[in-house]
Amino acid sequence: MTDSTELPIAIDAMGGDNAPGDIVRGTLLAVAAYGCNVALVGRRVEIERELNDAAGAKPTLRDRITIVDATEVVGMDEHPANAVRAKKDSSVVRACQMAANGEASAAVSAGNSGAMLAASLFAFKRIDGVARPAIGAMFPTRRGRTFVLDVGANTDCKAEWLAQFAVMGSVYAQKMMGIASPTVSLLSNGEEAEKGSALVQEAHPLLMAAPIRFIGNVEGKEVFAGAAHVVVCDGFVGNIALKVAEGVGDYLFATMKDEAMTSLSGKLGGALLRGKLRGIRDRVDYRHTGGALLLGVRGEAIIAHGRSDAIAIKNAIRVAREAVAADVSGTIAGALSAMNNQQPAAAAATT
Amino acid sequence: MTDSTELPIAIDAMGGDNAPGDIVRGTLLAVAAYGCNVALVGRRVEIERELNDAAGAKPTLRDRITIVDATEVVGMDEHPANAVRAKKDSSVVRACQMAANGEASAAVSAGNSGAMLAASLFAFKRIDGVARPAIGAMFPTRRGRTFVLDVGANTDCKAEWLAQFAVMGSVYAQKMMGIASPTVSLLSNGEEAEKGSALVQEAHPLLMAAPIRFIGNVEGKEVFAGAAHVVVCDGFVGNIALKVAEGVGDYLFATMKDEAMTSLSGKLGGALLRGKLRGIRDRVDYRHTGGALLLGVRGEAIIAHGRSDAIAIKNAIRVAREAVAADVSGTIAGALSAMNNQQPAAAAATT
Repeated sequence: MTDSTELPIAIDAMGGDNAPGDIVRGTLLAVAAYGCNVALVGRRVEIERELNDAAGAKPTLRDRITIVDATEVVGMDEHPANAVRAKKDSSVVRACQMAANGEASAAVSAGNSGAMLAASLFAFKRIDGVARPAIGAMFPTRRGRTFVLDVGANTDCKAEWLAQFAVMGSVYAQKMMGIASPTVSLLSNGEEAEKGSALVQEAHPLLMAAPIRFIGNVEGKEVFAGAAHVVVCDGFVGNIALKVAEGVGDYLFATMKDEAMTSLSGKLGGALLRGKLRGIRDRVDYRHTGGALLLGVRGEAIIAHGRSDAIAIKNAIRVAREAVAADVSGTIAGALSAMNNQQPAAAAATT
Repeated sequence: MTDSTELPIAIDAMGGDNAPGDIVRGTLLAVAAYGCNVALVGRRVEIERELNDAAGAKPTLRDRITIVDATEVVGMDEHPANAVRAKKDSSVVRACQMAANGEASAAVSAGNSGAMLAASLFAFKRIDGVARPAIGAMFPTRRGRTFVLDVGANTDCKAEWLAQFAVMGSVYAQKMMGIASPTVSLLSNGEEAEKGSALVQEAHPLLMAAPIRFIGNVEGKEVFAGAAHVVVCDGFVGNIALKVAEGVGDYLFATMKDEAMTSLSGKLGGALLRGKLRGIRDRVDYRHTGGALLLGVRGEAIIAHGRSDAIAIKNAIRVAREAVAADVSGTIAGALSAMNNQQPAAAAATT
């Protein structure tokens, strides 16, 4: 239980497929579990109605929740940058402003992810020396978890951006995954240094020179074997990798469910299999990862899944608290500043 | 059972992790199943030893198998183009030459896939108007199967190549999957036409103008839902998608096996679950897809998986026979010729 005067986490109460109901319920779960303070940003009347409806909204929990007015909402299908520019009083913009102004410790949104990216950039600004912020995703592997970035913030990338993603990912693994010296690799179509797209070939020596534990290229298959703690790629390839992984998972689970239903071994086998499936599914479920931290901006911004339910929101708030406690953005600023100062020396050393 | 004077399929007997043993055993399985003729290309002594050792090598099957001498072997780790240029008497080069010279109807190799690509290009030459050949892979989906190309022949692509891949993939789906009017889509990080990398955005209007049933962009996740019969991408992205899919499959199967082993429900539940897993695994197993047809060369060349066992080789020979019977390369030549003649008109129609 933290001090009740601790800065709240600002959450976009209107963002996401299940807003505001699941945002409010997830907030109540988080407050109960972590004893943190949360600011629900959005339309007061709707938020209050959800708070009153929620069974778990005891007065002690309500004391830790504030409602901050924002009259506008950015829709899931709106053009991100245009919507953020036009809707200054939207819940996502207000939540980011609160965190940027020191009224909140972090901002969380399950709404239009492009709008959250734009609002975060606008409110927090980029860390000095960061060309582009990146979004990472956690992949389950045989050895634990692997952090893959960028998975969507930057469709076409330059090689130097990938080198910065590598440094930011390395800091994330240290601070958020508790790995002292994380291994970093570059996603490619072959392990050999000379393999890869033109972009990957250009990025390879830059990652070699970066102040990280770079272990070379890794193939898509090896990501899930846990070949590295951090895997770097451009946002287009990262998005494809993430979505293919989701698609294969959905396909296999659906196929297995069919098998379980039509099991010749009857009800017993089917029930056993369905029970197992649930257990495994939980392990790879996005609801438990809680949302992606936007890396490269001056503050902690969490982009939660658009389909987030209350459990996912609770976990997104957990991620926000961990990021604040670990000062991820401050550590990235330090690491990139050191890298940018060292680069002339590193470049000289490799020629 | 076909005529014993029918042209044989030439197979690289020395190529692959399990050569020549599994190549010879797979050939025997194919001859027994399809009554086809096969030329085993490689080191005669080693091939004869395997034939003599094989239990199923009845005289009636032996009559349909010829051995063609090739003294050299291209190793799995050799530089593809250099090895093919230097080793003129290698089994992979000889197999492709036989098919190009009319001594065989098709060539199959489970060896170094880059070498098979280079040897095929060298022996068959490209179809007129084809900028680059492509390799496709079959992905299992909820609705059947989806053909994805390119999955590895071309790392960096131009937009026009993607349009040609789309036409070649469409012909493949018609001829090899039996789909009269296959849907074709472009792999991207969003369904909207304006989404995607610079390459995808440039390719989109070209696919719109191509003589195919183009249904727009598709996300990685939707591939496995069966959103389109054919999915087009560059070879780097296709390789990542293919390998990520393999990796997720391996991860999930391994995780489920662990669950089965440690099942609290005891041996019965574990055995049931393992049985189910085997059944599902078979459905997505590369051994049953039999190998990838190289699209865009003047002949039928099949690139089988390096880990191919006898079953995989049998299926690769089946794919070769189907490709010959359907005249895939001839149909692609016709379709591309028509597209190249129509392009000025199509371009005029869209402006």
